[in-house]
Amino acid sequence: MLISESSLRTFTQNIFLAMGCSNEHAELAADVLLLSDLRGIDSHGVARLIGYVRLWENKRINAIPNITIVHETPTTATVDGDAGLGLVVAPFAMQLAIKKAEKYGSGWVSVRNSNHFGIAGYHTLMAVEKDMIGYAMTNASPLVAPTFSNERLLGTNPICYAFPAGKYPPVVVDMATSAAANGKLEIAQRLGKQVPEGWIQDAAGNYTTDPHALKSGGSLLPLGSDRDHGSHKGFGLSATVDILSAVLSGANYGPWVPPFVAFLDPPANPVGLGIGHFVGAMRVDGFRPVDEFKAHMDNWVSRFKSASTVHPDQKVIIPGEPELEAQLDRKQNGIPLVDAVVNDLNGLADKFGIKRL
Amino acid sequence: MLISESSLRTFTQNIFLAMGCSNEHAELAADVLLLSDLRGIDSHGVARLIGYVRLWENKRINAIPNITIVHETPTTATVDGDAGLGLVVAPFAMQLAIKKAEKYGSGWVSVRNSNHFGIAGYHTLMAVEKDMIGYAMTNASPLVAPTFSNERLLGTNPICYAFPAGKYPPVVVDMATSAAANGKLEIAQRLGKQVPEGWIQDAAGNYTTDPHALKSGGSLLPLGSDRDHGSHKGFGLSATVDILSAVLSGANYGPWVPPFVAFLDPPANPVGLGIGHFVGAMRVDGFRPVDEFKAHMDNWVSRFKSASTVHPDQKVIIPGEPELEAQLDRKQNGIPLVDAVVNDLNGLADKFGIKRL
Repeated sequence: MLISESSLRTFTQNIFLAMGCSNEHAELAADVLLLSDLRGIDSHGVARLIGYVRLWENKRINAIPNITIVHETPTTATVDGDAGLGLVVAPFAMQLAIKKAEKYGSGWVSVRNSNHFGIAGYHTLMAVEKDMIGYAMTNASPLVAPTFSNERLLGTNPICYAFPAGKYPPVVVDMATSAAANGKLEIAQRLGKQVPEGWIQDAAGNYTTDPHALKSGGSLLPLGSDRDHGSHKGFGLSATVDILSAVLSGANYGPWVPPFVAFLDPPANPVGLGIGHFVGAMRVDGFRPVDEFKAHMDNWVSRFKSASTVHPDQKVIIPGEPELEAQLDRKQNGIPLVDAVVNDLNGLADKFGIKRL
Repeated sequence: MLISESSLRTFTQNIFLAMGCSNEHAELAADVLLLSDLRGIDSHGVARLIGYVRLWENKRINAIPNITIVHETPTTATVDGDAGLGLVVAPFAMQLAIKKAEKYGSGWVSVRNSNHFGIAGYHTLMAVEKDMIGYAMTNASPLVAPTFSNERLLGTNPICYAFPAGKYPPVVVDMATSAAANGKLEIAQRLGKQVPEGWIQDAAGNYTTDPHALKSGGSLLPLGSDRDHGSHKGFGLSATVDILSAVLSGANYGPWVPPFVAFLDPPANPVGLGIGHFVGAMRVDGFRPVDEFKAHMDNWVSRFKSASTVHPDQKVIIPGEPELEAQLDRKQNGIPLVDAVVNDLNGLADKFGIKRL
């Protein structure tokens, strides 16, 4: 099914309104999910709407959060999301970081007591709009084992940087710190396909190509896959995300991070509140004039785009480029939704008594 | 040869003094190199001293730099290293970041016109001493090809974060963004050993296990090794380092970064000045009380250290732990130097008319 951006946006807002969100929050939360679908990151868009609703039904998401700043210096802050949707808590934190950056050059906000915040790229692009460099990361339910371990202790913990450019679109590095994102595994599960070696291990810690191994105690592997290929680096990056997002803010970290799925209970002995994020913004003109920076960004992009490639039909992909291409295409031609997602969404419509897709 | 820390320190200081460095700079530069040797990162310690001397002989390192702040806001700055040793320029930048953090909560400094800065961990640990989170990165001579390319466009561009803990030592994530650091390749070359697939490709872009392939137009691969295993993520991280260190500061980036080795000339058409770094510091108590943070860091470390492992003789290694173990051992028992390095160092001693090791 191909659906227009505006129809899907209205539908999504109506679901959030039905949960009791304010107009402002419903609009914002829908905007975050829609950008994900527009940019072709289907795993993080409206496909997750049913997950948010279930958590809300389980009283693990608060539709009317009182988001507060609990600790602050001129350029740093800790925000408590009051168990709200990460989709509104993270933009609150990024707005605060941007305000601090406007005044002092940079702003950094660690967030506790939040939930899944959608795509990190949404939040970093808020900073890019202001000619700032955006930074965002979040911890997540434990699925990844550290190097040498067979225990799931870390989430896929994404890191995102976004940089404004001039004639080229912003460079957006937005990446899970695991070898493969969980969304890729879900696609393989749906298609009944095997996955490459180096993505997952079974419960005993042996490599497996079975995408269902996670359900029987297996775990995702950190970026690098094994020690010889630098999995300790993927582990180190994931640890960094966990510490900045949660140890710094007072959220849950490591194996204590509550699961996104409502059918799994959060650990009984939490070490903090909810899940954690970390966001930041730095004014480009805190370092050099914006036009100079953008001219050199364009030169950087142009040089890398023209790099010689191993195969003539390949090209070097600038981070963020495929997502922008998808965005331009889907804005014009609509957003494709698979049947399973359409069914989920229409189920939600029936539940809340709103118009089906 | 096993040499005491103090003897090697005095020797190294004397070399820098003979180059014309001030007492203060000679002491500092030696301190950076010694920490690397103490921590077991032999590739970045006194083994590189001869490289610095050769660059100085070629007038590409200025022993008496006038390091200046060329652009500034309360929490950001750009520093020009005046072609000085990165070993003194980067600590200058980190001191500035720390000063800003003391006043405003955080400080961020981009550096141009510098040279190789030793181990990133030295600089981040300066922040940890002040109960701050330290951040440091640098770009470097192009050796790494982006995903799908066979052109060397990026350095091994390390990223480092350091976090203070309580009863445990600081957590120090210090990693090249390539699948393998160049130092590991050099070890394989010296021993005449093959390297694992996924570290390097030959000039045509085919995987090779020959560690000498770099000398015939080959390139290192980004962390992740290939597209299926996330090499685009390693590329994205490396791009981030290049942009924050050089596009932001006005240093050379990508293929324009001047080579560390004096026998290769810098590119004829530079896009900036020297190589670039980016350093930052954030006060822990800008987010939550230091004792709370450290207690949770200890809990984090303790939980990960006790993770179950795939093989009973393995354990989960906390980032920075092996380096600290080496440091304690070598402080007590001396620093091992291989013959080739001893010969290089004694050659320098003869050149400058100072006492041999």
